[in-house]
Amino acid sequence: MTEQQDFTISTLGAAKIPSPIKLSKVADDLIANYVTDADLIIPDHYGAPDAPKSYRREDLLEKAGPREYIYFDPSKVHAAIVTCGGLCPGLNAVIRAIVMCLWNQYGVRRITGIRYGYRGFLPEYAIPTMELNPEIVDNIHTLGGTILGSSRGGNRVPEIVDAIERLGISMLFAIGGDGTQRGALAIAEEIEARKLKVAVVGIPKTIDNDLSFIQRSFGFETAVAEASKVITCANVEARGAIRGISLVKVMGRESGFIAVNTALASSDVDFVLIPEVPFDLYGDNGFYAALEKRVLANNHAVVLVAEGAGQEHLKASLGCDASGNKKLGDIGTFLKAGIQAYFAEKNIDIGLRYIDPSYIIRAIPASPSDAIYCARLGTNAVHAAMSGRTKCLIAQVNNKIVHIPTAVSVSKRNCVSPESSLWRDVLEATGQPVLMLNNEPKLD
Amino acid sequence: MTEQQDFTISTLGAAKIPSPIKLSKVADDLIANYVTDADLIIPDHYGAPDAPKSYRREDLLEKAGPREYIYFDPSKVHAAIVTCGGLCPGLNAVIRAIVMCLWNQYGVRRITGIRYGYRGFLPEYAIPTMELNPEIVDNIHTLGGTILGSSRGGNRVPEIVDAIERLGISMLFAIGGDGTQRGALAIAEEIEARKLKVAVVGIPKTIDNDLSFIQRSFGFETAVAEASKVITCANVEARGAIRGISLVKVMGRESGFIAVNTALASSDVDFVLIPEVPFDLYGDNGFYAALEKRVLANNHAVVLVAEGAGQEHLKASLGCDASGNKKLGDIGTFLKAGIQAYFAEKNIDIGLRYIDPSYIIRAIPASPSDAIYCARLGTNAVHAAMSGRTKCLIAQVNNKIVHIPTAVSVSKRNCVSPESSLWRDVLEATGQPVLMLNNEPKLD
Amino acid sequence: MTEQQDFTISTLGAAKIPSPIKLSKVADDLIANYVTDADLIIPDHYGAPDAPKSYRREDLLEKAGPREYIYFDPSKVHAAIVTCGGLCPGLNAVIRAIVMCLWNQYGVRRITGIRYGYRGFLPEYAIPTMELNPEIVDNIHTLGGTILGSSRGGNRVPEIVDAIERLGISMLFAIGGDGTQRGALAIAEEIEARKLKVAVVGIPKTIDNDLSFIQRSFGFETAVAEASKVITCANVEARGAIRGISLVKVMGRESGFIAVNTALASSDVDFVLIPEVPFDLYGDNGFYAALEKRVLANNHAVVLVAEGAGQEHLKASLGCDASGNKKLGDIGTFLKAGIQAYFAEKNIDIGLRYIDPSYIIRAIPASPSDAIYCARLGTNAVHAAMSGRTKCLIAQVNNKIVHIPTAVSVSKRNCVSPESSLWRDVLEATGQPVLMLNNEPKLD
Amino acid sequence: MTEQQDFTISTLGAAKIPSPIKLSKVADDLIANYVTDADLIIPDHYGAPDAPKSYRREDLLEKAGPREYIYFDPSKVHAAIVTCGGLCPGLNAVIRAIVMCLWNQYGVRRITGIRYGYRGFLPEYAIPTMELNPEIVDNIHTLGGTILGSSRGGNRVPEIVDAIERLGISMLFAIGGDGTQRGALAIAEEIEARKLKVAVVGIPKTIDNDLSFIQRSFGFETAVAEASKVITCANVEARGAIRGISLVKVMGRESGFIAVNTALASSDVDFVLIPEVPFDLYGDNGFYAALEKRVLANNHAVVLVAEGAGQEHLKASLGCDASGNKKLGDIGTFLKAGIQAYFAEKNIDIGLRYIDPSYIIRAIPASPSDAIYCARLGTNAVHAAMSGRTKCLIAQVNNKIVHIPTAVSVSKRNCVSPESSLWRDVLEATGQPVLMLNNEPKLD
Repeated sequence: MTEQQDFTISTLGAAKIPSPIKLSKVADDLIANYVTDADLIIPDHYGAPDAPKSYRREDLLEKAGPREYIYFDPSKVHAAIVTCGGLCPGLNAVIRAIVMCLWNQYGVRRITGIRYGYRGFLPEYAIPTMELNPEIVDNIHTLGGTILGSSRGGNRVPEIVDAIERLGISMLFAIGGDGTQRGALAIAEEIEARKLKVAVVGIPKTIDNDLSFIQRSFGFETAVAEASKVITCANVEARGAIRGISLVKVMGRESGFIAVNTALASSDVDFVLIPEVPFDLYGDNGFYAALEKRVLANNHAVVLVAEGAGQEHLKASLGCDASGNKKLGDIGTFLKAGIQAYFAEKNIDIGLRYIDPSYIIRAIPASPSDAIYCARLGTNAVHAAMSGRTKCLIAQVNNKIVHIPTAVSVSKRNCVSPESSLWRDVLEATGQPVLMLNNEPKLD
Repeated sequence: MTEQQDFTISTLGAAKIPSPIKLSKVADDLIANYVTDADLIIPDHYGAPDAPKSYRREDLLEKAGPREYIYFDPSKVHAAIVTCGGLCPGLNAVIRAIVMCLWNQYGVRRITGIRYGYRGFLPEYAIPTMELNPEIVDNIHTLGGTILGSSRGGNRVPEIVDAIERLGISMLFAIGGDGTQRGALAIAEEIEARKLKVAVVGIPKTIDNDLSFIQRSFGFETAVAEASKVITCANVEARGAIRGISLVKVMGRESGFIAVNTALASSDVDFVLIPEVPFDLYGDNGFYAALEKRVLANNHAVVLVAEGAGQEHLKASLGCDASGNKKLGDIGTFLKAGIQAYFAEKNIDIGLRYIDPSYIIRAIPASPSDAIYCARLGTNAVHAAMSGRTKCLIAQVNNKIVHIPTAVSVSKRNCVSPESSLWRDVLEATGQPVLMLNNEPKLD
Repeated sequence: MTEQQDFTISTLGAAKIPSPIKLSKVADDLIANYVTDADLIIPDHYGAPDAPKSYRREDLLEKAGPREYIYFDPSKVHAAIVTCGGLCPGLNAVIRAIVMCLWNQYGVRRITGIRYGYRGFLPEYAIPTMELNPEIVDNIHTLGGTILGSSRGGNRVPEIVDAIERLGISMLFAIGGDGTQRGALAIAEEIEARKLKVAVVGIPKTIDNDLSFIQRSFGFETAVAEASKVITCANVEARGAIRGISLVKVMGRESGFIAVNTALASSDVDFVLIPEVPFDLYGDNGFYAALEKRVLANNHAVVLVAEGAGQEHLKASLGCDASGNKKLGDIGTFLKAGIQAYFAEKNIDIGLRYIDPSYIIRAIPASPSDAIYCARLGTNAVHAAMSGRTKCLIAQVNNKIVHIPTAVSVSKRNCVSPESSLWRDVLEATGQPVLMLNNEPKLD
Repeated sequence: MTEQQDFTISTLGAAKIPSPIKLSKVADDLIANYVTDADLIIPDHYGAPDAPKSYRREDLLEKAGPREYIYFDPSKVHAAIVTCGGLCPGLNAVIRAIVMCLWNQYGVRRITGIRYGYRGFLPEYAIPTMELNPEIVDNIHTLGGTILGSSRGGNRVPEIVDAIERLGISMLFAIGGDGTQRGALAIAEEIEARKLKVAVVGIPKTIDNDLSFIQRSFGFETAVAEASKVITCANVEARGAIRGISLVKVMGRESGFIAVNTALASSDVDFVLIPEVPFDLYGDNGFYAALEKRVLANNHAVVLVAEGAGQEHLKASLGCDASGNKKLGDIGTFLKAGIQAYFAEKNIDIGLRYIDPSYIIRAIPASPSDAIYCARLGTNAVHAAMSGRTKCLIAQVNNKIVHIPTAVSVSKRNCVSPESSLWRDVLEATGQPVLMLNNEPKLD
């Protein structure tokens, strides 16, 4: 962590309205207290020796939660919720929590769902909005996906702010990934430029769990659990055939967290390929030779590849998608063909199965543990917006729910460090070579 | 059913050895009785008016179960088990039941697993066999797949019978589909020609549930349950996108039972395409036009296609695979491209997801209901072989486990009749057009 | 089956109105045909030799399904649905199917849910009814229980018929067990006496699967699957302790089908106790001695007891509940105390765990296979009522959905025969003594 | 956190043997590094303002992991594993990880399982030990419970150390709760007194998640997920009956973490009762009055009670069990009777169901997320013992796996603070009164 981070949260103005939520202000009366400005969290700085000895206010993260005074008069609030990008377990649970907290705790009665991502704001699509209330959202957390629908792109900022003005929206909850949050920030800046009083609060969504500063992204754990079931099947298939090889592709555009955790959870994986760890395909130390060795020794192998792995082996750049994400070549079908060809040339009969379960994994409902997390994120997003905070995200840091400035969070990504104990555990669990590079570093 | 069927079961000779299984021979003593030659089952002939008024012995099916006298001396039996073809939920449960019954009830102590299908018999593969006993198989029914491994083809009859002689096998249990059972019959005939005393009993395996005369094939119900979960995800994906279409391919080479039952179980499917019901792609009454109409009306659609559907739209014959099954073109990726192109030409933006969950579906363990069925099939296969029966299959007919001559069973396949109440229920559940043909029959 | 059964179905009058459902009347046009009076099913008569050589019309069962002509004008129909008795997986799926078929296929627009069983008809409870339509029932099959609520008793016939008149109901669908169907029959007879034109069609519900003439009751398979999971846990508990004994009680008031099938599905059960097979507790051949022997040999044991088992060991008659069912003593806690005392007296330390999962088992949603069955029962109940049939049940016989006169079906119950292959399989799977009676019959 | 804690870890002596695990000692070579003495973790001190400005070495926690030098010669190690107390999801996963790491990474070839807890050491029980190796443990993590068996009590220290000497054990891994770890500490002290060189490393097990200093106990998350399923059923039952009340008891002797998280995960709970929050039963503000109000308003209610809640309402002290845990009165059956009596007196008909799923919850296998955690705990326990550490536990603090002195960890317990945001979230989710006390504190 470098010194330049400033974790100060922007606000629309002073919070002067007494909150309708009644909490205690004294300790030890068995009743929860309001969160105050003194509730601050130290960001991640494990390894005490090199940790800073003291902190400035801007080095610390605000704890999320209900404040004694709020900025908005609940009777005048018109809240809007939008979900963007690919599906992720828990989207509906977040939507539900936002609606429940607005309605039941603050008494807000005007809540609008923007449908199909930012496109739902654009007149050209003519998509009607959806009124939200507790009855509508009561059971949605038991369903996968998002009742609002989603889409990529569409973050044409001035037009969106036009729509926000037209609809009279006073707070926007934007649930989505990096691109979405960058969009939300631009929207908030345009709102500021127009001198509007609209809070924009983001709930970061990345099934890949690769947000920097953020301990855990919702849906990630559910995705790993579902992917583990697929690995069990892949292993059954591989063992059922003569020299059976199962190749499974999972999500992970720029980070291998899903692949890594799935391999650790299932213990049936022989090779994990992730974007953070480069590998050669050919040569004595390459992946194909390692795979051959394993298959000849055990008669079966399971290979788990993150979608962003090995992009260096694929064709030249493919541009970006509507959300501004780099388009990836399909490493799954590429490896499928490559393995097939490698063993054909060696005249070794194999039984190769390729499994791509992405749509199944991302469409299931949140696990109980993720459901709790989603509920807390949604609730605290409401507390943040009601208190007038804006241009911030809600996320967990050091096991606490905090506010993070959007600008800080989107500035970089989290990765699996090849030198971490996490990756070390994967190497142990799979038994794969430490590095599958032909000129790898040597350990004495 | 035509008159020519002869359900008489072949035997190796007279069963003269008293069974080690002690059962009752009198009614009403609260103890189960031996099955006798008088226990016969009428094959399927629903619709009484046209049912035969009387039956000859050869029109009726033998009930399976333990006989008072058996053919083999258990202390001299060497039993072998082989699993062939694609994976199917319940294979391990059948293996377990065979081993448990041989060992615990008859006292057989020599049981050999032939590995990777019929190829496991062939010297060129040099695959060691696997000794089986209750300890080894105790928990295998909780795992998907087959501990023996499987493969297609390899049914080179004389070499297999050479191996049977060499190993001193006295009974062979062949678990597999049509091709496997045809192979088993040829093996039994070669055994007969060589005047060996080896019983060959088949347990039919077809995840497609398309065996004629047979009420239900093991693993089918489990497959439908798993496919239903995939449909739930497919529906979530379709509803999550603007004009979202999810296309799911499931097993069903020549019959659409899995697709049909999955659609009925999940109620989220808009179109079911099966091999038994032809459909046009283009034209006013074709599938693409119907899909367009549905997507424009509802903003989403789920299409479920059996792998053998619409083969008439694919390229010319592709030959056969190692088991003698006709090679099919891939209707899934064909339709994926076709739908994409159709809507592109119409300039309608869609969000198409293609899901092929076959390897996941077939690799899961048997559901409890299938587990019971597998256990009963395996146990009764042992009773059949011990009594000297051969060239027969074990299966359920009219809710009873019976013996069926292999020759009769492999003579034809079961299909979804487009005029059945089953298909009528699908049309109601999906709301799809009765026939998607441009010159379809008219109902007045 | 005795000769006296008469399977003729009562009707309200001639069906003269052309059905709005358009089906074919000719074969081989790829379109399903109407069901006609010639579609008849032979009831269960396995074991051909003693089967009747010919059948009278009243010996045969009508096939269920849509008729060409119906009795009711759909535009005038007011349908009502009631669910009675204990919960059972699939109730909501049946409700859904009835509503969907009435609305989508026949165009009925007035459908009323009677809440909390027959009590919902009684003015003293002042329970409002619930309007039903496709939107309300669309997803209910994914939830356990019944959206209508349920209760026992309340079948005060004249008052119910008063309510039926008052509400202007023209068809009543009664989903429930024996007591409910007897109530439905009495209601239908009172309706007849008052010369009203109201169809009463029952969908039999018994999680115990003990309906006579009926192949399978909905929810049963789901219950077995859930109970099997509990057995897995019970086995883990038993094996985890020194001389661990897990005692599990499942449903089965007068028949042991759930216990028997659960034991077969899970293969971890050591003793199954069911109402149909008497057992002694004490003495050399009694249950406690057998349990002691097993626990000392294996160090653990799992005992599965149906709630109706061993009632002879419990206190004198406890009367009947509100549905007219005999009240049972609690064999579970009785055996728990008995086992505890037996081993205490013998000075043998055991670790006994008692598990009663009934409320969990019966509250889960239907499995896919049960969901299909529920959908078919509900749909065919509508076809029956629309055609003017009354005083009948919808159920599966010989793998076909049929109409059964209510009076015939409630006349007796189905049981696990101690001499059946089903019970024989349980004895094999558990290894428990053939009979745990001190003066048991001897096998030579 | 008070100042007196000393997190220094005891060792058996200097670690001078080069580890057989080959890791890097330089950064940025893509290969993981050895953990060094400089890898220290700050214990929990959220809320920066009052956090200490500087730390002494003994204030900080050692990071767990492989060291460059180890204390034991792997070829001479005889490791032993024991599991004690009640079952908990993940026990087998921990056992597996210990065996795999010892065998595969360090080359240890002598690993013994002590069966049925500390009793397995005592000659009077004459329980044979169990040899452990990778083949035996390969799949055990997919099974619930512990393959070693477990029991309470038996920690008779001198006899256990006699057995350790007799068996020649050089390291003991003790998996169990508070009592077990106190026992392990006493064993280690006796070992020290006898001047033996035996490492004793604990892996803390508490399904209740109530260990102080420790972020998360293994199996807890799995338990919450399973309990959530039970709540779904309880809710279905409550809604299915007229004034239906479902009362569910879950684990939680001294802390309500399972109850609290289950309520948050499922959102169907109306009242949560936990040990940390006192409540009155009677009176205007008591629990029964609040329950009555809710049931009359909604017609149903779900009550979730932790086993340790409301002990003040139960009979006088019941002493302690074999592990030294206080015996609790059964709050579940007590409340069942109390609710029944309360409503009977008020003449209000209710439908009360009582569900106690404890044995089911604790016997299931670990969820994927718990499985990963168990694997990391087991592996790091081996690294700790091999390096000569003793009298310590392995656990997660601040998202890192660390060593904690056993003496520090067993000194107090973790609780749900009634003033925490966690309990605040529960109050919001359930809508239950902030305090159900007749003389509760007032909020202005």
